Amino acid sequence: MNERLAALRGLLDTRGLDAIALSRSANKRYFSGFRLSDSEGPTSGWSGTLLVTRDANMILADSRYTEQAQAEAPDWELIPTAGRMDEDLPPLLRRRRVEALGLEALVVSHADWAALAQVAPGVELHAMDEELMRLRIVKAASEVDAIGRACALTDACFAHLMDFVKPGMTERAVAWELESYFRANGAEGLAFDAIVLAGPRAAMPHGRPSDAVVERGNVLLLDFGCVVDGYRSDMTRTVFVGDVPDQIRRYHVAVREAQAAVIDALAVGVNGQELDAIARRRIEAEGVEPYGHGLGHGIGLETHEPPRLRASEAYTLEAGMVFSVEPGIYLPGVTGVRIEDIVALESSGPRLLTTSPREALVIG
Amino acid sequence: MNERLAALRGLLDTRGLDAIALSRSANKRYFSGFRLSDSEGPTSGWSGTLLVTRDANMILADSRYTEQAQAEAPDWELIPTAGRMDEDLPPLLRRRRVEALGLEALVVSHADWAALAQVAPGVELHAMDEELMRLRIVKAASEVDAIGRACALTDACFAHLMDFVKPGMTERAVAWELESYFRANGAEGLAFDAIVLAGPRAAMPHGRPSDAVVERGNVLLLDFGCVVDGYRSDMTRTVFVGDVPDQIRRYHVAVREAQAAVIDALAVGVNGQELDAIARRRIEAEGVEPYGHGLGHGIGLETHEPPRLRASEAYTLEAGMVFSVEPGIYLPGVTGVRIEDIVALESSGPRLLTTSPREALVIG
Repeated sequence: MNERLAALRGLLDTRGLDAIALSRSANKRYFSGFRLSDSEGPTSGWSGTLLVTRDANMILADSRYTEQAQAEAPDWELIPTAGRMDEDLPPLLRRRRVEALGLEALVVSHADWAALAQVAPGVELHAMDEELMRLRIVKAASEVDAIGRACALTDACFAHLMDFVKPGMTERAVAWELESYFRANGAEGLAFDAIVLAGPRAAMPHGRPSDAVVERGNVLLLDFGCVVDGYRSDMTRTVFVGDVPDQIRRYHVAVREAQAAVIDALAVGVNGQELDAIARRRIEAEGVEPYGHGLGHGIGLETHEPPRLRASEAYTLEAGMVFSVEPGIYLPGVTGVRIEDIVALESSGPRLLTTSPREALVIG
Repeated sequence: MNERLAALRGLLDTRGLDAIALSRSANKRYFSGFRLSDSEGPTSGWSGTLLVTRDANMILADSRYTEQAQAEAPDWELIPTAGRMDEDLPPLLRRRRVEALGLEALVVSHADWAALAQVAPGVELHAMDEELMRLRIVKAASEVDAIGRACALTDACFAHLMDFVKPGMTERAVAWELESYFRANGAEGLAFDAIVLAGPRAAMPHGRPSDAVVERGNVLLLDFGCVVDGYRSDMTRTVFVGDVPDQIRRYHVAVREAQAAVIDALAVGVNGQELDAIARRRIEAEGVEPYGHGLGHGIGLETHEPPRLRASEAYTLEAGMVFSVEPGIYLPGVTGVRIEDIVALESSGPRLLTTSPREALVIG
């Protein structure tokens, strides 16, 4: 924590700020240990924020969280709040003579930002989301370890599902079995709402489990992950239910080869854009349109965080980064195929944290 | 839906706007039927937004959601997006000659708002969160019915838990049983992370279930709810585990009487502030400090929505409003007591949608 706080304070100097207010749950936990419920968002009130100056660490928490904040972040000064940024911050900013404040503009609502700007006209407000996310982009060994444990539990869950799933089951029943498995085996929860899609519904990259049933002759797509010690996993497999048409088999091979080509090319210093291009070329060679989403995303305390592996963003990969590689092919109304693994990049090359087979398994 | 859209368009006139962009998930669902995953927030990308003008209904959705949007909101024009407000909106605003746009400032991040303001300098941006929430504040009969079904399932879950819970179980095990019961009995999910707190931990109004165990001689506080057809329930009971000290019994009676006094006073035209004062007076008569949270909150497609019943906000209650009544007493380090029911206000008076006994039940 001390190293993390030192890095955070480093941003005060590089950006010429007097204080930083942290609103993003993952950042609050990363820098202080203070854990808000995942269901606490900007829409359910301003229930806890960190304020860091050169010589003070403060947690602003409303009465619902004071006991918990004291237990989880005992070294931080606890300041009760009225639950509104524009009421709570001005006296603290005056007392600490803050003239330039860093904020997370991607998380703070425009309403909160505008209200604060109005009541504290002498304080410059600066967006600094990217620099803050950068501090979490290279993982410590203990973080890679936690992500690895989440991935291992996800592999075990997948193996369990391959025994459990039978044709005729609903997507919803499979999703519930998956969630039950995670909870019964020590996960804190799901990393995100599980995606369980049968047959043509697999063409929806973010569909929700429905009462549609697993049917022979098409695929079952499973995209799921869990949380272990705050860290997340994310994995996709597309399995065949009985015999599937040759076209689906070819698509599966194309996606698998696209993913393998990316993993072969992974090394410190490579750019995410190049990797995305490698995967797209392999899929285009099949004569189909590649995935509309990105090739991959960083993962840690959040399921989606930098680096992004996609055409529109340039991230040069460094040792200690942990991210997904997940090419796909989608044919609306017909079928979808996606394979996703989590990779930890080490100085010697990639290490796969997801170890389930990538070949198409057949169930039913 | 047509009536709802007409009310939404009414705001174009009253606010002098040419278009409204909806970002809040509950509003998107309310006005169009389009359901984004709950896990889609501003931090995971701008994956779907509604744009409504005087003569057009548009869903802007990225490729992950296009199929789903077409299925759920077939009458809406579907417009694929790049996933960024400042890229997607300007051409549409130009084409529709929009000079004044309403936005949800509580949901749109400051980063998105500022980027849009920069690329569309000719468009006035207006915050209109409150007016939009107002449109959902009086529930239709079908909505009260859905909330009632969620409350009935929550009552059934509570009855099940009273059989299930035994001293020595962890809070986590109770929380998992509760969630399993909901899912096995048709709920779409939890309305919020369940609060299950044993003994002194009940003093944390928003604590998370831990490995602390249910012990004789203190309370078990359960605050939980589920989602049925998109609508939510929310209920709290504080039960006694074996014999508890007289002080805890007195606090329970005080909270119950405070809640009963509020329900007796409930009628169309009453203000939420008066109700909050009634509950506080009864608790202060006990010589203890009343709850630091509000007395109650509206509920519907969101767990917390207007009206608020608390000192700081003035809502005059109308027939068709549905809200919680949840006074409490918290003694940090000792114990906590809260009782919460959902009430539908009808022209003839309050109707309790939560029907579990309010007297302290004893388990173990």
